[in-house]
Amino acid sequence: MTHTDSQTEGSWLAPEELDSARQRLPILYVDAIPVRVDTHGQVTSVGLLLRATSQGTITRALVSGRVLYHERVRSALIRHLEKDLGPLALPRIPIAPQPFTVAEYFPTPGVTAFHDPRQHAVSLAFVVPVEGDCEPQQDALEFSWFAPAEAREPEVLADMSGGQDTLLLQGLFWAGV
Amino acid sequence: MTHTDSQTEGSWLAPEELDSARQRLPILYVDAIPVRVDTHGQVTSVGLLLRATSQGTITRALVSGRVLYHERVRSALIRHLEKDLGPLALPRIPIAPQPFTVAEYFPTPGVTAFHDPRQHAVSLAFVVPVEGDCEPQQDALEFSWFAPAEAREPEVLADMSGGQDTLLLQGLFWAGV
Amino acid sequence: MTHTDSQTEGSWLAPEELDSARQRLPILYVDAIPVRVDTHGQVTSVGLLLRATSQGTITRALVSGRVLYHERVRSALIRHLEKDLGPLALPRIPIAPQPFTVAEYFPTPGVTAFHDPRQHAVSLAFVVPVEGDCEPQQDALEFSWFAPAEAREPEVLADMSGGQDTLLLQGLFWAGV
Amino acid sequence: MTHTDSQTEGSWLAPEELDSARQRLPILYVDAIPVRVDTHGQVTSVGLLLRATSQGTITRALVSGRVLYHERVRSALIRHLEKDLGPLALPRIPIAPQPFTVAEYFPTPGVTAFHDPRQHAVSLAFVVPVEGDCEPQQDALEFSWFAPAEAREPEVLADMSGGQDTLLLQGLFWAGV
Repeated sequence: MTHTDSQTEGSWLAPEELDSARQRLPILYVDAIPVRVDTHGQVTSVGLLLRATSQGTITRALVSGRVLYHERVRSALIRHLEKDLGPLALPRIPIAPQPFTVAEYFPTPGVTAFHDPRQHAVSLAFVVPVEGDCEPQQDALEFSWFAPAEAREPEVLADMSGGQDTLLLQGLFWAGV
Repeated sequence: MTHTDSQTEGSWLAPEELDSARQRLPILYVDAIPVRVDTHGQVTSVGLLLRATSQGTITRALVSGRVLYHERVRSALIRHLEKDLGPLALPRIPIAPQPFTVAEYFPTPGVTAFHDPRQHAVSLAFVVPVEGDCEPQQDALEFSWFAPAEAREPEVLADMSGGQDTLLLQGLFWAGV
Repeated sequence: MTHTDSQTEGSWLAPEELDSARQRLPILYVDAIPVRVDTHGQVTSVGLLLRATSQGTITRALVSGRVLYHERVRSALIRHLEKDLGPLALPRIPIAPQPFTVAEYFPTPGVTAFHDPRQHAVSLAFVVPVEGDCEPQQDALEFSWFAPAEAREPEVLADMSGGQDTLLLQGLFWAGV
Repeated sequence: MTHTDSQTEGSWLAPEELDSARQRLPILYVDAIPVRVDTHGQVTSVGLLLRATSQGTITRALVSGRVLYHERVRSALIRHLEKDLGPLALPRIPIAPQPFTVAEYFPTPGVTAFHDPRQHAVSLAFVVPVEGDCEPQQDALEFSWFAPAEAREPEVLADMSGGQDTLLLQGLFWAGV
């Protein structure tokens, strides 16, 4: 994650401080499921990133990232969507702060459906329509649209890690897909 | 309400049949709070209709109407928004079928906060961003945008009837305004 | 369905009137997924009814039924839960009128995931903890508790009809199971 | 706050570390509105604490507190409810992880409706029925039940601080009160 917003920069954590906080506090995250919708608001496709992990494996992933000090949840959503999908993605940020679920990623596997070996992250999850052009950025190898039925297929879900397959299903079921 | 969709016309109720059903069954409605949002999804204005009632009084009103036989809730939302705000309103129908609340309008006042002397109506309520131009149609005298703080002022709420003031507050509080 | 509440009886529909309304209007329903929860609010089991259909087949079913004229949605939930699970079930009716989803059962298969050959029913769906003893009533052959993981297995879901398998999954995913 | 759970103790923050983290990271909180409900799930009373602040003023407050490292949100809710209302309060923790809203308390007043001079706290807010006996604990001077209409009166709301009056209204409106 590269931070460049000079306004809040002074209050960010140095990498070693963040590592230390990650062993001591739950870290606030947002997860976004990018979707295309038709004029009736129905989801027509679901977007997934393809990433190389630090272990050298390849996973499908949702847009996901930390909420910074003094950053609104809405702003964190936009920042991570633009960071991953590019500045022309045109996300429609949800009106209400109510997420469709809260995903609790534990460093210990099995406590919940969600797992993050680095930290205890608590993530507010949203389904976010994007209207513009999406181009994978930085560490993402690819960004692809799937039909909702395809996105739910075992072979796609099997490529996701940390429980994001569950989160994707939660979001799609909430959206009535 | 004028219905012109020939596909479902055969199954609609004649006016006297609808009157009879209204004495016997809860009637399914949708209520929509039209809003303008900024790029962060925050509500910047709330739209209210000005209507003359059959009793000759003037009220502020939300977009509201019946769901027809064999009509999707999403389609009913679009139909009523376009009927009241015109064909260029460009409503962004919510992704999820989950309404922010369900308003139960009873023919007997005082059972709930909602009252409709004509019928027992149960309404699925949504906050709906509209992006286009809104022109009041048919029986609406006017359509005006209010700043969220203005829309919550007692004098504006006092002009609403049937409990729609409560519904407006529920929607605005849900939207985090 | 047997109605015995004398207060609202005068306004109920005779069977032939109900049949006629069912061809003309969406009929308001509630669906309830009965669950057991632990002290942390986590779902520990899911209750499903076993019913014989009029076609002579046997299906697993949620608690489901019509909302009557002048009946609160909350009261309809209690009435149907007690009708199916008995008077000692002690359901904890949800606080908020916001359902976890709205299921649109169409008489035409394929319009949505939900299908009801008799009618266009629009159902407010809730997950409802029950704390007491549940005994199947009337036309239910059996009522059984399933572990959440069991309830999601293909062979259990395959025994449900009209799209209630989807509704069950929606409810379980919403509950974070 | 006194922590006694030996399992996670090693990973808690020393007071000075917590102070430092509070200047650098959003801190995850839960807010709970304790309510009494009737058999229909309708809120009949709302519970508010009376606290003396460090500035020597007296405020009405919701149950509120931090989520600890490796603690479930559900467990944090129970812990704070029992800490403030006593071990016999018998809270019914909500089934779903979906909060009714997310309150973003900023150290800078005016960014949102919520303000906390000590930190940037992001709070998952829930309405929680409590069934047992409530006794104010520790630093709470009193715990009182209010009729929902009373709780919404300006003089009660004026005794709340940090935007909890808004959060209380959001919760009550969501509950359909």
